[in-house]
Amino acid sequence: MQNFRFHNTTILDFGKGTIADLSALVPKDAKVLMTYGGGSIKKNGVYDQVKSALKDHQVIEFGGIEPNPHYETCMKAVALAKQEGITFLLSVGGGSTLDGTKFIAAAIPFAGDDPWDILAKGAPVVSALPVGCVLTLPATGSESNGFSVVSRMEPLQKLAFFSEQVYPRFSILDPETTFTLPSRQTANGVVDAFAHVLEQYLTYDVNAPLQDRQAEAVLLTLIEEGPKALANPTDYDARANVMWSATQALAGAIACGVPQDWATHMMGHELTALYGLDHAQTLAVVFPATMQHCRIAKKSKLLKYADRVWGIRGGSEDACIDAVIVKTEEFFRSLGVKTRLAEYGVTEGIERVGQRIEARGQKIGEHANLGRKDIDAILGLCAK
Amino acid sequence: MQNFRFHNTTILDFGKGTIADLSALVPKDAKVLMTYGGGSIKKNGVYDQVKSALKDHQVIEFGGIEPNPHYETCMKAVALAKQEGITFLLSVGGGSTLDGTKFIAAAIPFAGDDPWDILAKGAPVVSALPVGCVLTLPATGSESNGFSVVSRMEPLQKLAFFSEQVYPRFSILDPETTFTLPSRQTANGVVDAFAHVLEQYLTYDVNAPLQDRQAEAVLLTLIEEGPKALANPTDYDARANVMWSATQALAGAIACGVPQDWATHMMGHELTALYGLDHAQTLAVVFPATMQHCRIAKKSKLLKYADRVWGIRGGSEDACIDAVIVKTEEFFRSLGVKTRLAEYGVTEGIERVGQRIEARGQKIGEHANLGRKDIDAILGLCAK
Repeated sequence: MQNFRFHNTTILDFGKGTIADLSALVPKDAKVLMTYGGGSIKKNGVYDQVKSALKDHQVIEFGGIEPNPHYETCMKAVALAKQEGITFLLSVGGGSTLDGTKFIAAAIPFAGDDPWDILAKGAPVVSALPVGCVLTLPATGSESNGFSVVSRMEPLQKLAFFSEQVYPRFSILDPETTFTLPSRQTANGVVDAFAHVLEQYLTYDVNAPLQDRQAEAVLLTLIEEGPKALANPTDYDARANVMWSATQALAGAIACGVPQDWATHMMGHELTALYGLDHAQTLAVVFPATMQHCRIAKKSKLLKYADRVWGIRGGSEDACIDAVIVKTEEFFRSLGVKTRLAEYGVTEGIERVGQRIEARGQKIGEHANLGRKDIDAILGLCAK
Repeated sequence: MQNFRFHNTTILDFGKGTIADLSALVPKDAKVLMTYGGGSIKKNGVYDQVKSALKDHQVIEFGGIEPNPHYETCMKAVALAKQEGITFLLSVGGGSTLDGTKFIAAAIPFAGDDPWDILAKGAPVVSALPVGCVLTLPATGSESNGFSVVSRMEPLQKLAFFSEQVYPRFSILDPETTFTLPSRQTANGVVDAFAHVLEQYLTYDVNAPLQDRQAEAVLLTLIEEGPKALANPTDYDARANVMWSATQALAGAIACGVPQDWATHMMGHELTALYGLDHAQTLAVVFPATMQHCRIAKKSKLLKYADRVWGIRGGSEDACIDAVIVKTEEFFRSLGVKTRLAEYGVTEGIERVGQRIEARGQKIGEHANLGRKDIDAILGLCAK
């Protein structure tokens, strides 16, 4: 096992009716900026529950944060927050709203010239406004970590940052808020959480059996519970199990002391920036191809994954690895998420993905050894 | 799944050489009371590492905290800390030293008449001195939770309290510090961690499959790695895997949204208070008997445990449950921990356990329905 440091400070308030807890969780004297997305919270009752819980608080609203939140939009919120003297940010929505809100929180007190440097140049986040979260879409795990991914239109980029400063102070996870999610978002969420686990699990063995089994626990639960949530959107337990799995997928425990990959995410971010695919769609496309391309480097973990998660064992090592790659892709497809670039109309200019990653001087993967040729090969494997 | 709130603020600093991190983790201006036990840290090099890391800090020492830390000893530390104006407590040792230190931390600013009321009457812990930890014995999980168990000689009692205020600010977990543990303590630690998981897992099904699998992950790891650590005390990975398993066993995640038992611990605490058995010895004795006595109430979970943890399946339900109870007891015995009261010389006066729990007005177990007759029956099953 490798050395590691683990520290996760978020209060997770989970279950039916927990939005009412906002009144106690948000400081009484806070001046709150409530951020949200396209307005689905006004149709499913979440907006009303939040406003009711915060009826004795000072609340200003900022709606319209996009999926893959835009830097330009976030900077409008930064200006509003400064003008209004906001002291607390409350994200109400999915991972995109929360990621945008984390960036806003870091950008408000940012002392440098341009907060974009936090993403583009790794400028340090010395402080941030406190962030709270009401989560309505289980997927990104952002509700219990310090990650944020933000996109910019000009120049076209999708970049991530991490800071201890932007862990949510609390996240309210009420599975009932997910009953009205469109199937596409439910399925995307399952794929996203599944891929988060694979990025931390499917590398090479460092004799960390507890973390391996904790990772497998999340994968097995998503395989069982994801289809139930899709088939019966108001199945409370299925929704709760998917929601808790998505949180646990990226709350830090399964990353303790093990190598991590994230190559699929790096390629996926470029595909979203260039072609507008949903984040989870990019992962469903790229992950099976990454497994295939890296099947030698990832052999021991692919065999463990095949055996313990999918019950594939007994054949030759190559046959088991072939089978588990097919099985993974079939799982994504069974949720209704397509797994080939051509199915999303992406047929031209794919070499730009590798070019853009190369231009940033990055090598990717758990060995930091995947370059442009590897990226081209991986994207070739999932082209059609 | 049941509603829950999860919040664990401890920094876990894990791996070889991490004791050196103390210099940065303990505030520079702190006046530190370094607490420890019987002095094994002076033989295994831990004491020197701590003193070296804190060479620029103000440090006063308080040694001699016993296994099952005594209230009377802790109160001497409280007096010393008040006299010296201590602002930070650093526990260097196992779970007993840390539990005692947590109580000291809560007792120093306690505003009531007698800090024992925290344990005996549930007096609220409004504040506590900050506590840090260097752990040298994986077992109790105290390094990443708000629990503390303290004993008193007069009247003879062993009681627990929980407070958010006493979560360690940080815990340093260096597996190399455990290389020199006596086999008895290594084995006790594995049994203790194993029992902590069973208390949270072996109840009744509430459709929380992720938590079930996270619990099984710890159990399976302890079954694999515990014997390795005993057979080869300097096997770093085995020591690391046991240490991390013991922490994860009681850091809160596997308790999220599920019922909990703790009847075995309640009976075990009385056996330690009355007869001086090691804590883990009491658990090894009582747990198989609790499974047997509660086999109908715990049926679905006993069958899941049999299947997933021990591979016992296919026979009748009763046969599977019989087999897994035997298997659990055999596991404890394989580690060298005896499982019958008579083997520890305990043959007289066992009815006092039930009497003492009844006298406190407690019913125990996940349904809070086990009374004196049940306790007598359970202890009868593990008498000899």
